[in-house]
Amino acid sequence: MINSLSQSRRRFLTTVGASALTIPTLTDVLGRPLQTEAGQPGRKLGVALVGLGYYSKNLLAPALQQTQHCRLAGIVTGTPAKAEEWKQKYNISQANVYDYKTFDRIIDNKDIDVVYVVLPNNMHREFVVRAAQAGKHVICEKPMAITVADCQAMIDACKKANRQLAIGYRLHYEPFTQEVMRLGQQKVFGPVKFIESSDGFRSGDPNQWRLKKAMAGGGPLMDVGIYAVQGARYVTGEEPISVTAQFSPKTDPQKFKEVEETMFWQFRFPSGAVSNSTTSYASGVERLYASCQDGWFELSPAFGYGPLKGRTSKGPIEKPVVNHQAAHMDGVCKDLIDGKKLPDHITGEEGLRDVRLLQAIYRAAETGRTIDLKA
Amino acid sequence: MINSLSQSRRRFLTTVGASALTIPTLTDVLGRPLQTEAGQPGRKLGVALVGLGYYSKNLLAPALQQTQHCRLAGIVTGTPAKAEEWKQKYNISQANVYDYKTFDRIIDNKDIDVVYVVLPNNMHREFVVRAAQAGKHVICEKPMAITVADCQAMIDACKKANRQLAIGYRLHYEPFTQEVMRLGQQKVFGPVKFIESSDGFRSGDPNQWRLKKAMAGGGPLMDVGIYAVQGARYVTGEEPISVTAQFSPKTDPQKFKEVEETMFWQFRFPSGAVSNSTTSYASGVERLYASCQDGWFELSPAFGYGPLKGRTSKGPIEKPVVNHQAAHMDGVCKDLIDGKKLPDHITGEEGLRDVRLLQAIYRAAETGRTIDLKA
Repeated sequence: MINSLSQSRRRFLTTVGASALTIPTLTDVLGRPLQTEAGQPGRKLGVALVGLGYYSKNLLAPALQQTQHCRLAGIVTGTPAKAEEWKQKYNISQANVYDYKTFDRIIDNKDIDVVYVVLPNNMHREFVVRAAQAGKHVICEKPMAITVADCQAMIDACKKANRQLAIGYRLHYEPFTQEVMRLGQQKVFGPVKFIESSDGFRSGDPNQWRLKKAMAGGGPLMDVGIYAVQGARYVTGEEPISVTAQFSPKTDPQKFKEVEETMFWQFRFPSGAVSNSTTSYASGVERLYASCQDGWFELSPAFGYGPLKGRTSKGPIEKPVVNHQAAHMDGVCKDLIDGKKLPDHITGEEGLRDVRLLQAIYRAAETGRTIDLKA
Repeated sequence: MINSLSQSRRRFLTTVGASALTIPTLTDVLGRPLQTEAGQPGRKLGVALVGLGYYSKNLLAPALQQTQHCRLAGIVTGTPAKAEEWKQKYNISQANVYDYKTFDRIIDNKDIDVVYVVLPNNMHREFVVRAAQAGKHVICEKPMAITVADCQAMIDACKKANRQLAIGYRLHYEPFTQEVMRLGQQKVFGPVKFIESSDGFRSGDPNQWRLKKAMAGGGPLMDVGIYAVQGARYVTGEEPISVTAQFSPKTDPQKFKEVEETMFWQFRFPSGAVSNSTTSYASGVERLYASCQDGWFELSPAFGYGPLKGRTSKGPIEKPVVNHQAAHMDGVCKDLIDGKKLPDHITGEEGLRDVRLLQAIYRAAETGRTIDLKA
């Protein structure tokens, strides 16, 4: 376990004790000696979920019952009834329950190593910064934030606190997705020439925060279009150099008063590869297709919670089906336990790259211009 | 068999004879009595292929060995060696062989009922008009022509000659395609909301006529993009009301000096349905996907010579595999034999609608503007 800067000394003295000095010295990302749980090999990192909405309730909490390297240790919620329900269901002590005002006291809670921020997009910045300042490593749901400036502030706060920041990019730990990354980036079917990646679904409740621009930062592009952006990026292994984009006219202008209903965008990559993508809150679509010089490969479904399904011009992709959320949290926590720097493609830097692209897509659609991304 | 205006009387007197007067009177599209082959139930319409390139040689001629209502009766070619080869291979008499200069004499050839124009796009107009003036029904490969004015001239010429004009829309006779038309137009999964339809392939020979703008009228959009346009139209059963489009930068500017290499376009339909499409001579992609209110359906491959493959949110689409070209020519010729007006969606009017859309897509991409198609 890596502790917060402020807690590390105290924990070192009280929890790990002198015995830690006798084990091989691991170091943290800055090369400083790491207080590992080497003396407690079975110990799991304690995760606190901030925000107990659908994703926490139905995906993360159940996944945390399957994880090997972390466990559900705490919750942060503004709804007392939810706190009660979760305490009972997951056997969480009152000491590990916070609301949004008491949250900062988590600095003193040695049960909590990682804070997972699962709040509306516009609250990510505040709670990631507060979590880092409380000495916790942070996982933050995608999109990382609603502006590039927010992303940068979050990265800076974690750096300053010497904590690591992961974004909820669960698919980087998902075997079918890892396979298409390999097929594309290693040019197994030759260079990737064209990608069709789309993600959309029919959005229900017209009052949800995801339809409010101030909270979500945008519509389906921010929510699920980001997967299509990720898909084009991780299949090519490249950063797009320009983008064009189009808003589709709204068929339900009342529901989509503040955010786009459906939109399209096209990336150009340095290698010459191009992509065409759609995102929508009006239509279901979920596919990642890559046309290469000597063949093709496809995931469909490509971005949902699984199981994913894949095929190539040579036949089906066969991979184990995993719990995406468990694989993601275990992957992050294993690296934290081992004192490793998290892989770049799941960090805040990656989150910022995506948010920058999402903003460029909106700008391209608003202006009707090709936006140069090299600048 | 329906004869040309100029020939009908002669044929009536010499071929069918008085016996035709004793059978129930069928009428042609204008209500005039029809000279049927009722007395010769097994007779097949004679088809002459104009242009003996890849499609004629490898698809149409073999298909005409399987057809029930037509047969390969003549050829029109500028290459004497090809004429010899075909005469022998298909047992075609010298009297039924023409070159581009002697072609008009086909007016006197009672073996030939239908002329199928399989020439480069810019030659379609001339040979369709000449065929109609020679009293023949005409099938013309897609795209119908390279300008809307050409299409209109072709329609007018056939109308004036009282001949029918079909475009090479083979997929309208293909069972998987007919099924997705039904699923979409009859709203089997509820209204269609979004369509992703794309068609592209890696183009070979850099010297082929398809890369020359004067002959092809454009690049992959004219050649295969038209299938993606058709797909969006026949799944919705609607005509698009606006379009945006984008050229992708060329990765091989030498090869694609005259025409686009890859491009994208987005249609909006009156019902609110939208589509996003890609066509390319640089990348293989071939799919027609429809997202509906209560499910989805897909063909992939969707536009090639078959077999096509389809699935829906409820399971696979199971349909008989047919020879596309045989089904198409048989369907057209059966209607001609029966004196029926050809279905609107395979006529010159449909061809013109597509060419008008192709031109609008180019205009949208060139100007960066949304092109209003209602005007």
